Amino acid sequence: MIQTIEWINNKVVMIDQTRLPTEEVYREYDNYKDVAQAIKNMVIRGAPAIGVAAAMGIALGAQSISANSYEEFSTKMKEILEEMAKTRPTAVNLFWAIEEMRRCAEAHRHLPIPQLKEVLKNRALQIRDEDIQINRILGKYGAQLIKSGDTILTHCNAGALATAGYGTALGVIRAAYEEGKQIHVFVDETRPFLQGSRLTAWELAKENIPLTLITDNMAGYFMRKGKINLIIVGADRIAANGDVANKIGTYSLAVLAKEHGIPFYVAAPISTLDLSIRSGDQIPIEERNPQEVTQIAGKQIAPEAIQVANPAFDVTPHEYITAIITEKGIAWPPYEESLAKLAR
Amino acid sequence: MIQTIEWINNKVVMIDQTRLPTEEVYREYDNYKDVAQAIKNMVIRGAPAIGVAAAMGIALGAQSISANSYEEFSTKMKEILEEMAKTRPTAVNLFWAIEEMRRCAEAHRHLPIPQLKEVLKNRALQIRDEDIQINRILGKYGAQLIKSGDTILTHCNAGALATAGYGTALGVIRAAYEEGKQIHVFVDETRPFLQGSRLTAWELAKENIPLTLITDNMAGYFMRKGKINLIIVGADRIAANGDVANKIGTYSLAVLAKEHGIPFYVAAPISTLDLSIRSGDQIPIEERNPQEVTQIAGKQIAPEAIQVANPAFDVTPHEYITAIITEKGIAWPPYEESLAKLAR
Repeated sequence: MIQTIEWINNKVVMIDQTRLPTEEVYREYDNYKDVAQAIKNMVIRGAPAIGVAAAMGIALGAQSISANSYEEFSTKMKEILEEMAKTRPTAVNLFWAIEEMRRCAEAHRHLPIPQLKEVLKNRALQIRDEDIQINRILGKYGAQLIKSGDTILTHCNAGALATAGYGTALGVIRAAYEEGKQIHVFVDETRPFLQGSRLTAWELAKENIPLTLITDNMAGYFMRKGKINLIIVGADRIAANGDVANKIGTYSLAVLAKEHGIPFYVAAPISTLDLSIRSGDQIPIEERNPQEVTQIAGKQIAPEAIQVANPAFDVTPHEYITAIITEKGIAWPPYEESLAKLAR
Repeated sequence: MIQTIEWINNKVVMIDQTRLPTEEVYREYDNYKDVAQAIKNMVIRGAPAIGVAAAMGIALGAQSISANSYEEFSTKMKEILEEMAKTRPTAVNLFWAIEEMRRCAEAHRHLPIPQLKEVLKNRALQIRDEDIQINRILGKYGAQLIKSGDTILTHCNAGALATAGYGTALGVIRAAYEEGKQIHVFVDETRPFLQGSRLTAWELAKENIPLTLITDNMAGYFMRKGKINLIIVGADRIAANGDVANKIGTYSLAVLAKEHGIPFYVAAPISTLDLSIRSGDQIPIEERNPQEVTQIAGKQIAPEAIQVANPAFDVTPHEYITAIITEKGIAWPPYEESLAKLAR
């Protein structure tokens, strides 16, 4: 199994996702600022993985706090939490993990500082392990929606690399495959960062799950030809009404799915729900560096000095979503009710 | 003005479209086999430009035929025509140009061979010049559909580079801009060959027509935000019923346009019509080298030895098309009638 992120000898170790699939390079971080930078630069990416990396980064930061009182510790802890919160705006799992770590510190404020640090480290490791367990359960629920013979389109990477392991959308695909179902996966390359061709294709190929790599603009063609009969993607944030923020391009696929009568599923852990916001309109969309669009592998592929848009995510309105698969079960419309029930 | 293809000193000269936008390199060809290879390798591409290149390549081949009779000439000519027909299967302009050159030779069979060669050369040059004129007229018709304030999405490159000059879809955009209309163009990068980011963005930037470059999967996002209110693309072949084969991804855009109530226009010369086929189902779709998808600028961006699909075109059914703009006027549904009338 791929190790996306681990805690080894008081360091946070990640596979560098900017170098895959041609190189398997592992990065070691011994301070939280570097972990924050790694999240920003997408050395690690994917909503659940960002949450785990944030928790581990915070735990790492906590280890090097020197403080004589909880108040002093808490002040320094606050700096770390704030730094982590500035990395990426869209995935709510980041803020969920930050809040978890803050609450964990608060709940153990009575402990001597060295023990408090140990508790925080253990909570971060637990968040990591829980994430893998969550994905396995979610995968089993989702696999019920997949039958032998299905050809499944997925976008971006919602795999082991986007989580602590196993994956959400790819967790469902893995579970279906492990159950012996004959499936074929269409992998969207997912410009500009190429998470599909670089990461999803790599994960599936490693496990011999049959796949066809396509460019993003081919999806409609294959749907019309009847070659795709199900779509499953991950999520970066899900509003109370079931609107889903996910990798740019997800919304276009949902529209195409509707036009072709193909079910469109979202797979995400409960920590991706943001019930504090009513609809997807309130989800902040990260705008990334134009160079991700104008250059590939350091090579200029567009004229210099032109205007470029690079929104990293889009919002798919709930009307386009057939069901949302979580570790607590499958939510069906109306999501306002079904998500609230699962989140309890 | 950009010179896409010219006849200079008995050579065919083309700007190398595989090297743009970072390098402006011109290629000179002194035999038809190299011209055929240039079409295959997409040194020159775009349906009308392929037609012009084929005509010029055939004229070039004709120059070096040594024959004592028309029958002998015709046999050798046939070889050239057949070689040219094997370059790319989808754009009908290729076959139109081949047929034009064959007919031209046949019509002048009574001439002495040297004069016949001269006539063929002149017909090829005429096809080139006519193409530019056609585009200017087509542009003026299309500009009627564009009003000041429009934000226009275009896909691939249907510009000066896709034609002998001025362009079809970009010809319409150019004409509207020349008329002083305030427009903004969203340019889809158009994977895998990047005709949008490499060629269309380059053409528009050269003429200071305002543009925003996006990746293909961002189009739906901007439509939903109301940032795009019109789509215009070129065509590689149009069936009698108005079904349009064009660059892969066109169909997905047409579906998105329908969902958002945005007009979807196709701009193409009459030579792109193939009234011999009833519907788009009969249009052959070229499957290109998987390396176009798995490598960019020579750099591997996907795992080796995975299955890849690379259809270069898709077919947009006529129901999705608001109007088809030609040099003979604008065709509106039902296309069966309106196209037949224009083609007369």
